[in-house]
Amino acid sequence: MPGLAEFERLHVVLVAARNPLNIGAAARAMSNFGFSRLRVVNPYHVAFREARSAVGASALLASAAEYKSIADAVADCTLVVGTTAIRQRQLRHTFRRLEYGARLIRKQLASGRVALLFGSEKRGLSNDELGHCHWLMRIPTREVHTSMNLGQAVAVCLYELVREAKATETTEKPQLATAGEMERITAMLFDALLASGYVKSGASASTHEKVRRLVRRLCFEADDAETWLGMLRQILWKLRSDGYS
Amino acid sequence: MPGLAEFERLHVVLVAARNPLNIGAAARAMSNFGFSRLRVVNPYHVAFREARSAVGASALLASAAEYKSIADAVADCTLVVGTTAIRQRQLRHTFRRLEYGARLIRKQLASGRVALLFGSEKRGLSNDELGHCHWLMRIPTREVHTSMNLGQAVAVCLYELVREAKATETTEKPQLATAGEMERITAMLFDALLASGYVKSGASASTHEKVRRLVRRLCFEADDAETWLGMLRQILWKLRSDGYS
Repeated sequence: MPGLAEFERLHVVLVAARNPLNIGAAARAMSNFGFSRLRVVNPYHVAFREARSAVGASALLASAAEYKSIADAVADCTLVVGTTAIRQRQLRHTFRRLEYGARLIRKQLASGRVALLFGSEKRGLSNDELGHCHWLMRIPTREVHTSMNLGQAVAVCLYELVREAKATETTEKPQLATAGEMERITAMLFDALLASGYVKSGASASTHEKVRRLVRRLCFEADDAETWLGMLRQILWKLRSDGYS
Repeated sequence: MPGLAEFERLHVVLVAARNPLNIGAAARAMSNFGFSRLRVVNPYHVAFREARSAVGASALLASAAEYKSIADAVADCTLVVGTTAIRQRQLRHTFRRLEYGARLIRKQLASGRVALLFGSEKRGLSNDELGHCHWLMRIPTREVHTSMNLGQAVAVCLYELVREAKATETTEKPQLATAGEMERITAMLFDALLASGYVKSGASASTHEKVRRLVRRLCFEADDAETWLGMLRQILWKLRSDGYS
């Protein structure tokens, strides 16, 4: 995951966006994933004004820079990447899948500014607009339904930039019950089975062992062990009191 | 990337979604990434009707199954995963980052149905609703702005399910010019530099070598080599004709 300075070097550039909801959604995704530099090129002005007054990510939208041309919007960037869902071979651009392209962007962010371009909702980036890009990045959508919603495309691209490839099991798992607690549960359950007649009083050690293994295969959490013991204790009490009533 | 059969086993479950645009966006992301099984629990009915009539992904929405309760919606699934942006420790659920959780879901899809739950826009999944989940998956948003738009959250989760960890350079790169073409460009440029006076006529071999290396550091594409040669040829012709005019 890039550091703060790296995040500041990424400029999300929305080209000719027309829908205020999409501009707002793009800004929200940026805020969710820690990016703050938004540039807009020739937005549909009503849309831009409406998006600015929308709830959430409004500080980010208020500080968005507006440009008349892509050339101006990307002038200070050392890498300009266009996003597209389709693979137009006639463009003769280098297309990279998002998974790989994001890796190159992260590398570049260590030392220089990167512009990540998103086209308008209607037609994406035009050939002329793509001409400003060093290469194009393709979100791996299905061939039969390539066109993504603008806000969702921004979210997916930014997620890929912050995702941690090596994320494995976290330490957020609840603590499991100890062997001692499991054994108390096993004993209590066995007594309840005896009292209920499910297990006959002359049952073999192997029956007890079967019950123990049944219990072991469950994942009792430490905090739950006492609750289970309490429930079993009550059931056992009721079984025994009924038996003698 | 999971196969088709695996994709069919994933059920996206929207719980109490209220905004038709979000329901539509969720369906669109599903279609983009190749998933088709949508289940909705207690949707706000006007929203569901409106979403169904929306453009795009409408077949998917038309076949969406509606349920009265989460229990019914996930009854045939062997794994139920809830999505959440926040980490509520008091829930004592296992929280897994999306990157890791998606790996476990992919494994499970090889043999069984998985339900992926998304809560309502207002409040996400309630504690009661989370109770149906085996574990929770957390999209790695910033602590200060955790709450994602529903449609974007669905898109990001499904993208992680289809992404290819090993995606590297694709074969979509344009073909580069051959050494022979580069040499012709070098020679033509050198002649132009001579004719323009940038290089003196008695220039050493090392000057020629410098020009060669300058040209080599550029990435000429095969299809562009002829164009560059044509431009240089014209420039050279003009330089020489001016010289003798």
